[in-house]
Amino acid sequence: MNRERSGGDTVAAGIWNKEKENFSRGKGISRKIFLQLEKPTEEDSRSYQQRILDGLKGKNIDSRMTIRTMGKLYPLCDQAEWEITVSLAWDGVQWWIVDAEAGDTTAFHYGYAVDMGSTTVAVQLWNCETGECLWEADSYSRQISYGTDILTRIFYCKDDPDKRKELQKASIDTILDILKEIEKNTGIGPEQCIQMVIAGNTTMIHFLLDMDAFCVFSTPYAVRADCPGFFGGTELGIPVKGFLYCYPGKSNYLGGDIISGVAAMGLHKSEEIQVFFDIGTNGEIVIGNKEFLLCGAGAAGPALEGGSVRTGMRACEGAVDRVTIQDGKVCCHVIGGETAKGICGSGIIELLSELFLHGWINFLGKLQPEKSSLIRTMDGLPALEYAPGLYFWQEDIDEFIKTKAAASTMVEYMFRESGLSLDKVSRFYVAGAFGKHVNKEAAITIGMYPDMDRERLVSAGNASLAGAGMLLMDKSMLNDLDEILDKMVYIQFGAVEDFLHMMVAAQAIPHTDMERYPTVRKKLAEIEEKNKGA
Amino acid sequence: MNRERSGGDTVAAGIWNKEKENFSRGKGISRKIFLQLEKPTEEDSRSYQQRILDGLKGKNIDSRMTIRTMGKLYPLCDQAEWEITVSLAWDGVQWWIVDAEAGDTTAFHYGYAVDMGSTTVAVQLWNCETGECLWEADSYSRQISYGTDILTRIFYCKDDPDKRKELQKASIDTILDILKEIEKNTGIGPEQCIQMVIAGNTTMIHFLLDMDAFCVFSTPYAVRADCPGFFGGTELGIPVKGFLYCYPGKSNYLGGDIISGVAAMGLHKSEEIQVFFDIGTNGEIVIGNKEFLLCGAGAAGPALEGGSVRTGMRACEGAVDRVTIQDGKVCCHVIGGETAKGICGSGIIELLSELFLHGWINFLGKLQPEKSSLIRTMDGLPALEYAPGLYFWQEDIDEFIKTKAAASTMVEYMFRESGLSLDKVSRFYVAGAFGKHVNKEAAITIGMYPDMDRERLVSAGNASLAGAGMLLMDKSMLNDLDEILDKMVYIQFGAVEDFLHMMVAAQAIPHTDMERYPTVRKKLAEIEEKNKGA
Repeated sequence: MNRERSGGDTVAAGIWNKEKENFSRGKGISRKIFLQLEKPTEEDSRSYQQRILDGLKGKNIDSRMTIRTMGKLYPLCDQAEWEITVSLAWDGVQWWIVDAEAGDTTAFHYGYAVDMGSTTVAVQLWNCETGECLWEADSYSRQISYGTDILTRIFYCKDDPDKRKELQKASIDTILDILKEIEKNTGIGPEQCIQMVIAGNTTMIHFLLDMDAFCVFSTPYAVRADCPGFFGGTELGIPVKGFLYCYPGKSNYLGGDIISGVAAMGLHKSEEIQVFFDIGTNGEIVIGNKEFLLCGAGAAGPALEGGSVRTGMRACEGAVDRVTIQDGKVCCHVIGGETAKGICGSGIIELLSELFLHGWINFLGKLQPEKSSLIRTMDGLPALEYAPGLYFWQEDIDEFIKTKAAASTMVEYMFRESGLSLDKVSRFYVAGAFGKHVNKEAAITIGMYPDMDRERLVSAGNASLAGAGMLLMDKSMLNDLDEILDKMVYIQFGAVEDFLHMMVAAQAIPHTDMERYPTVRKKLAEIEEKNKGA
Repeated sequence: MNRERSGGDTVAAGIWNKEKENFSRGKGISRKIFLQLEKPTEEDSRSYQQRILDGLKGKNIDSRMTIRTMGKLYPLCDQAEWEITVSLAWDGVQWWIVDAEAGDTTAFHYGYAVDMGSTTVAVQLWNCETGECLWEADSYSRQISYGTDILTRIFYCKDDPDKRKELQKASIDTILDILKEIEKNTGIGPEQCIQMVIAGNTTMIHFLLDMDAFCVFSTPYAVRADCPGFFGGTELGIPVKGFLYCYPGKSNYLGGDIISGVAAMGLHKSEEIQVFFDIGTNGEIVIGNKEFLLCGAGAAGPALEGGSVRTGMRACEGAVDRVTIQDGKVCCHVIGGETAKGICGSGIIELLSELFLHGWINFLGKLQPEKSSLIRTMDGLPALEYAPGLYFWQEDIDEFIKTKAAASTMVEYMFRESGLSLDKVSRFYVAGAFGKHVNKEAAITIGMYPDMDRERLVSAGNASLAGAGMLLMDKSMLNDLDEILDKMVYIQFGAVEDFLHMMVAAQAIPHTDMERYPTVRKKLAEIEEKNKGA
């Protein structure tokens, strides 16, 4: 996927505009400074290096120079008549002069933000001088050829350094592919960019940095490294001028992608209580404000991404992504407009919501054959034909309900633990590629999202990528991260005794306790009323 | 040259012992720390990285970890049952954990000191845990194939980046050659060493770091870079675990080798006034104490290193290095004990001193044929046959006198400028390979060294190399360097109007002003007395 950022893009736009508002030139983790220096004389024969260091000191910037830059100073400075622009890269502790160019090139100041997902890697090219995102592109991860799920990949290279190197190379090559794509579209390549900020889950960062990731999923869940910090781009063969920065993680399941998302949404700065909920194959939830951050993570299951559903698929061409039931017919919207090939997560949610509201499934999710001729036995099992030749089986529904139950139980559990109620929550952010496309109303109806004020339920889009971009532009976020990591109190759901009991209670539509879903109850009452009238 | 350091080595021993006295474990720019850590549990699932960072914090060390080290932690920590040793490298601002090893390996803590001379490169391998120098080896620089003198090399690669790369490679390969030699003798290679400190003159550092060095010798003498500081060994392909550090320079002619020497001798800390004088092809002089440092530099000429003298040669096998005149005969000591092939600097100084004391040359250095049948016309010019078939011509003497006049004028000038007298000097260090072998008495007799208390005239040996080793073992020297550079007031002799007049006055043996050489005058009087008696 490849697109020029218009600023009007649906979901990420919120964060994007938020970022723009706060943008302040020269506050990022890279800088470009134009210097007009006096040329050397016998009276003032300070070295080329010293003249530049002194020039920056005159602008209150203490810095060091890389030897690569030292090698560039001659004949550059003389040819440019000592009017030069230096590129500065922050390494977490100090500024490094990582490049020098003739003339005033401050307008050409770029950096990358990367969201390193298990399936998809997304990169944004930013103009760090104006705070504009110039381009965004993504691509499937090359890691997929080592397994679609993370565990397969981890086992592939476990205790085999050579194979671990393969995974690392796949990670790096995926990034390089996208950088090339961006360069093709913008003319701006990595050599013109100073910094790259990467947000990824713990396993992805382990693979990227050539670390064994078995620890992420095996007791006692102590990962190899969670604070990679800044390191030279050349160490990984990504030829930016300055450094790569990886967002730190909190624990095995709460990686840099979540920290990045939380930082982007600003939970840690909020006066009011906010929730950050990222759901996909795994679910991660953070609830808190500037006083506290309670967080949890657990497996949700592949159902939300169309896995485990027989005709499930990712949200790409041919996938049913919107469903309504009208006049006894199932009406599907298909991505790309062609014949439906399967159904993706957002389609499943709408399908289930519609089935439930029309009584085609009961509150336990069981298909009611008497309600429609589209519900019939197929391959010996009850199933719904939602599109010509495409079926949604009872077991698909059961699987999905387990997944949504896991997701909603995480939320429920966290609220119980914190002693808070949803009324107190000013923003409930749902993040992730999945959260971006889902129909809020449908997700509430089936009990996947809590029943709350729709205004306060916000699709955050790719918050991890947004956080990466924001850090590029705002060095002070590094301090926030220490604060976030420090404040976060982590609960591993697997360790909670009554989690399973809670999850069973959530395995109804919307929930066994209908008190939790007043708007759904109201909706059902209205439908009943209408049916009575008909 | 290759030798195990016994500690009893003639000249450097002084510095060496001085260093040993001040040695304090754990104060260097590298450290090895043994950690006994708790292994991860579900209750304490801090990352491997964090456990180590916390372990060091418990020892009051804040540090960062390289991604290379992160990649090593598994299975290392588990296999070692969490008893590991980390290698720490200082980068000028912070400690980096650059390696982790199983068990307690603190005893295996090594580093390199390098003196990067134009002709010879010398390397010492240090045990940084005990403050012992384990081995020293040197080698001709591979740069020599691009020209024996520096200017030829500079012009070879001027404005040609590819050729500059050749010079850089020659510099690095010379170091690598010597490291191999040291490894052959000690079993310790660069991968086991943490840091490398390099002291070299400005041109050598420019070549090493791939910088154009034409600036060193051309007006306005603003060099490209004079404070390279710390940088990754891998950046130059020198595979130490941590960093390379290059001593900073003060100016074009006062490079890191001199700063290193001054730091080693401790002029900047001395209550009393001291002099540091390094003579070779160029002469550099620093005079001062903890209050001030006045310094100067200028060309001395190649005569001191056996250049420009027709039968001159470096101090290697076959070179006459000691000379006496007895019973009308010239008695030569030859390095290696074989037939003399030529004469080196220290031999020339003794020869001239003997010729003068025996009246074979007058105070202007002119040969007196009536004094010996060994003085005769050869190739149409007056010459002395100092060894069978080997001649020292009148023009060789003239050339040498010019050189020694340049050297002694530097000293004279500096004293005049500072308004000081030699009586006030507690130590007069003569450094450099040349200073190491020269006969003090002879050098005073011919007026190359000032006529002063012999006790206070100290051969410092390779002070530049000594300073490199000391910095390896003493991080606080980095602060001293800022102080030294700050205090140094530099006088470029070429710019001094009456320098030439002073030099002409010094072109006599020992000097036109005999008042300056009371002990030589006394010696001459004694000889005259003896001759009268005979």
